[in-house]
Amino acid sequence: MQYLADVTVELKSGMLDPEGNTIKRALGHLGYETNDVKTAKKFTIDLDAESFDDARQNVDEMCQKLIANPIIHNYTIDLREA
Amino acid sequence: MQYLADVTVELKSGMLDPEGNTIKRALGHLGYETNDVKTAKKFTIDLDAESFDDARQNVDEMCQKLIANPIIHNYTIDLREA
Repeated sequence: MQYLADVTVELKSGMLDPEGNTIKRALGHLGYETNDVKTAKKFTIDLDAESFDDARQNVDEMCQKLIANPIIHNYTIDLREA
Repeated sequence: MQYLADVTVELKSGMLDPEGNTIKRALGHLGYETNDVKTAKKFTIDLDAESFDDARQNVDEMCQKLIANPIIHNYTIDLREA
């Protein structure tokens, strides 16, 4: 079965987000005041697996081993059949 | 009223995604075969606005003027009250 996993990798709270701060400042210069801008990465992974649970476990391992850095990131996985 | 906008900025279909390709290859080296990996950016914007429609229009203008490049990106806005 084919699955699509949307993985969102965010900075843990308290981590500095210089890209977000830069965008907030640049938006201010354009006349758009904001309270805060936070950045994150999204990865859409297309994979084959035996079952939904297998797909979820594989994607979770991918996140732990490569995609996210557990020291600074939280990640969420949104999995669906393709 | 305070609003939170989740803006997702993706590459238009047909655009090369070298970061996604690199992750796909690296996952393969770790033993995880995937069909495809696509990358995107997510921005969470915390802003004040008079109404939901005002907030949406402001965020749309921010995307067009700064956050997305309309030549290579599609973007979606998911807006909610904070």
